Parts: sequence; structure tokens; C-alpha cells
Amino acid sequence: MKFSKKKEDEFFVMFKDFSTTLVEMADSFKSIIHDYNNVERTIAGLKLSESECDVKSHKVIEQLNKSFITPFDREDIFAIIDQLDDLADFIEDSASKLIMYDIHEIKPDAIEMADIIYDAVDKINTLFNTITDKKKLKESKEAIIEVNRLENLGDAVYRRALTKLFRESQDPMDVIKWKDIYEELEETLDACEHLADTVEGVIMKYA
Amino acid sequence: MKFSKKKEDEFFVMFKDFSTTLVEMADSFKSIIHDYNNVERTIAGLKLSESECDVKSHKVIEQLNKSFITPFDREDIFAIIDQLDDLADFIEDSASKLIMYDIHEIKPDAIEMADIIYDAVDKINTLFNTITDKKKLKESKEAIIEVNRLENLGDAVYRRALTKLFRESQDPMDVIKWKDIYEELEETLDACEHLADTVEGVIMKYA
Amino acid sequence: MKFSKKKEDEFFVMFKDFSTTLVEMADSFKSIIHDYNNVERTIAGLKLSESECDVKSHKVIEQLNKSFITPFDREDIFAIIDQLDDLADFIEDSASKLIMYDIHEIKPDAIEMADIIYDAVDKINTLFNTITDKKKLKESKEAIIEVNRLENLGDAVYRRALTKLFRESQDPMDVIKWKDIYEELEETLDACEHLADTVEGVIMKYA
Repeated sequence: MKFSKKKEDEFFVMFKDFSTTLVEMADSFKSIIHDYNNVERTIAGLKLSESECDVKSHKVIEQLNKSFITPFDREDIFAIIDQLDDLADFIEDSASKLIMYDIHEIKPDAIEMADIIYDAVDKINTLFNTITDKKKLKESKEAIIEVNRLENLGDAVYRRALTKLFRESQDPMDVIKWKDIYEELEETLDACEHLADTVEGVIMKYA
Repeated sequence: MKFSKKKEDEFFVMFKDFSTTLVEMADSFKSIIHDYNNVERTIAGLKLSESECDVKSHKVIEQLNKSFITPFDREDIFAIIDQLDDLADFIEDSASKLIMYDIHEIKPDAIEMADIIYDAVDKINTLFNTITDKKKLKESKEAIIEVNRLENLGDAVYRRALTKLFRESQDPMDVIKWKDIYEELEETLDACEHLADTVEGVIMKYA
Repeated sequence: MKFSKKKEDEFFVMFKDFSTTLVEMADSFKSIIHDYNNVERTIAGLKLSESECDVKSHKVIEQLNKSFITPFDREDIFAIIDQLDDLADFIEDSASKLIMYDIHEIKPDAIEMADIIYDAVDKINTLFNTITDKKKLKESKEAIIEVNRLENLGDAVYRRALTKLFRESQDPMDVIKWKDIYEELEETLDACEHLADTVEGVIMKYA
């Protein structure tokens, strides 16, 4: 890309930093789901990370509103930070619902979805670590394709999970809770794909 | 509109083509709902159409990112293709939920909503078939008004359906399933209206 | 801000007017929730206000599409009117769900959320009444901060309400209904925060 090094730093360092926090959050969530103990404490950590993300996104927007010249379209920067922030919310919400809905045991399909979410968030981090380096364009593009593949995979798991839930569970309360949790996990993956696609658009525009 | 014929073709032909596929999808969905047999096979067809729509929207976005000059604002083209794609997703999701939720019998209110969805999608197709022809501006405008009228009608059916569901059904599982299906159908109509309004904005801007 | 007085009037007077209607709607909703009688009649009034808001937002969009020069970015005006309209929908939907879901008694957490919604909408009205006056910049900023604080407060009430619901209610139908109502109220507050943040961006850009 053709932006000045300085300007590039301003926003891309923030995006990199944000996506690193997201990887930590997706990792915590994975731990909670795999080993459903000490949940309250881990979730408190997630809540903290999510608040940090709020502060980070606010800082980017402030920076954005102060900048006369931006490395690329203002709308694109705004869209990226908005979608990074959404992703942090989705991960934290997914974890919080386990507590709110009084979940005592995790269903295997949810474990599978948490793993896929971690992988997708990890690829988004790869994307923000390669995007400013022209020589790594291939890696950036592969990361985008991988996020899209993971979203498709997650969608198949989500549909299988719901199908099973409505056939096997006899308890309406169980259905209410898990239908909603599966939906939240699927929306988290949608948010990953949406973000990857937005970044793809930016790459293409400035290629 | 004042765009060159060539540029017009590039995007508008794609939109026309996309909306024709949507009419086919809405028609399949209507068939499923009216004659609830062979659902699995018809839904497999819908899933295929939805994948084709993904490919189509990706092609438009690629084309868009390659184009220096676009017939109208890049943002508008992006919004239109995004909303066409959403609409394909909503129709396919609505059908898939019938399977996922293990539905054995269709409720009359859902039949009414599927008919309204078909009519709205058909009007959107009319819109994309008239929009590039100045002499057909009246038809374009009538199509937009009709989509808005159909969304209002659908909203009234949706509210009546939910009111009935919460008063008549004694089975929480039945309520969980149908509340969600009615909501999905209502959101499909919202997506139709949203798209018609976006196109209206484009027409007004370039009038 | 540096817009000509005339242009300022065109859109800001409409926004002010819109937000005043929203305060009336939030007030009606608060009355319904606090004194759950005569609901049908009050809701009819809300439905009327919501229709008026539809007309208002359509007028702004029409005006916007006719204007060559706008006091600030076309996209920002469009975003603001869109979000004002969403807010009207959320308030009306929240009230309608009480009827659709056949609710006979209001839960205390919903009363608390309705109060917070009223306060947030009132602050949005303050925002649109101060934004065009440079001397009132401090008041505008305070209103934005207050909307953000109220959204956070509402989120805490929402989480506490859901936690309680899933632990105390034995009736799945009760859970289906109230989970959905609490979510709608929380989304109403999200819509308030989203609008305040959009206006904040506009203020910063033109400061």
C-alpha cells in the first residue's frame, strides 16, 4: 500500500493490537468451554478485556476524527474498528450467557464451535500482522480465504447442532438456552467473516 | 440516468440476474410452504441457489474493487449487492429452519407470509428490470411503493400470527419454533423493503 | 459548526422535531410499564407516533436526495435519520410485544429499564437541542457521555434480569416472553448509544 509509514502506524498498530487482544479473548473462551470450571473468574477476565477493547476502539475513533488525512478511506477505518469491537462483544456475550442461562454442562457442538472461533480470530490476527507488508500479500489473502472457510464450517456445525437439539431435547428450557448460545456462536463467526471481507475490500481498493 | 451504456451493463446486468435468481428462490420457498412434501429435495435446490448468489455477489465486489470509475457511488453498489445477498440468505434460512426445527405441519399465517415475500421479491425484480430505462421510471417508482406496501402488510400478518401463537399454543416447543420462523419471515420482508429504499435513494440522487 | 444558517435549519430542525416525538414515545412507554392499564389505547397512540416518525424520516431522506449541498456529509445525515427511525421502531415494538405476548403483569426489572430508556431518549433530545449552538458544546458532550453511561447501566440491569429469569422462573412460556422483552429493551438502549456516538463523530469532524 502507498500510505506514508507514519500514518500507517497510527491506525494499523491499533488494529494489530486490538486483534491480539481478540486472540486472547477467544483463547479464554475456548478454555472456559473445554474445561467448564472456574468460569466466573475467567469470565471476569473476559469482561475486563472487552472493556479494554471499548477504550481502544474509542481511541481509534477519536484519532480518526482528529485526522485530516487518513491512510485510506475514513469509512473503511471506521468500519474495521466497529467490526473489531463487535467481535469483542460477541465473544464476551457468548461467555456471559453461559452464566446468565445457568448452564451446568457444555454440549460437544459448542466445544467444536469455540475451537472454530479461536481459529478464525487467530487468522484475523494474521491478517492484521501481514496487511501492511506488500511482500506478505499472499499470506493476507490466504488468511481471508481461511476465515471464509471457517465460517462455512461453523455454519454447518451450527445447523447440525440445532437439528440435533430440536430432535433430542425434551426440555423446552434446554432448547431456549442452547438455541440462543448456538446462535450467538454462529453470529461470532459471521462477525469474523464480515471483518475479513471488509479488509479484503480495502486491500483490493489500494492494491 | 446518465451513465455510459457500458458501465451500466457491468453492474445492472448483474443486479438483474441476481434478482431473477431471488424470484426463483422465493418461488421454491412458496412451493415448499404450500405443499409441504419433498421438502428436503427442494431445500437442497435452495441451498444451491444461495451458494450461486454468494458467487455472484463476490463477482460484483471483485468487479467493484477493480473499477476506477463506477456508474454511481461505490457505496451504493456495495449496499445493493450486500442487500441482495442478505435476501438470498433470509430465504434459504427460512426454508432450512423448517427442517432444523423438525416442523411437520405448516401454519396458515406462514403460508400468507410466504406469498407476500414472493410478491415483494417479484417487485424487486421488476425494479431492476426497469431502473436503467428512463421511460420506465413510473414503473420503478410503483414497484418501490408496492414493496413498501407489502412489507406493511407482512408486518400486520406477523403481529397477528404471534398474537395468535401466544394465546392458542399450549406447547412451549411449538412457540419457540414458530416465533422464530415468523420472525425470520418478517425480517425477509424487512430486507426487501430496505433494498427497495436503497434503490429509491439511488434513483433520486441520479434523477 | 460552519454551516449556513439556512442549511442548518433544513436538517437540524427535523432532527430536533423527531427527537421530541421520541421523548413523547418513551414517556408513553414508561406510563404503560408503570401503570399497566389501558395498555391497548396507549399502544395505539404509540403506533400513531411511530407512523408519524416514518413520514418524518421519509421527508428527511427526500430532502437529502434533492439537496446538492448538505450542511455536513450526506452519509452522516442519512445515518442519523436512519438511527432516529430505528429508535422509534424499538420503542413501539417493545410496547407491542406486551400485547402480542399476552403479558398480564410487568416485572420490576422491565420498569427499571423503561425508566433508563426514557432518560437516554431525553438526553438525545438535549443533544439535538444544543448541537447547533457552539456555546452549548459542553452540554452536547455531557449528553453524549450520559447516554453512554445509561446504556452501561441498562446492560447491567438486563444481565441481572436474565440471570434472575433463568433461575427463578419454572415456566418456559414466561422465559420465552421475558427473555425477548428484556432483549428488546436492551437493544433500544443500544440504539440510543449508537445514535449518540454517531452524532459525536459528526461533532468531532466539524469541530
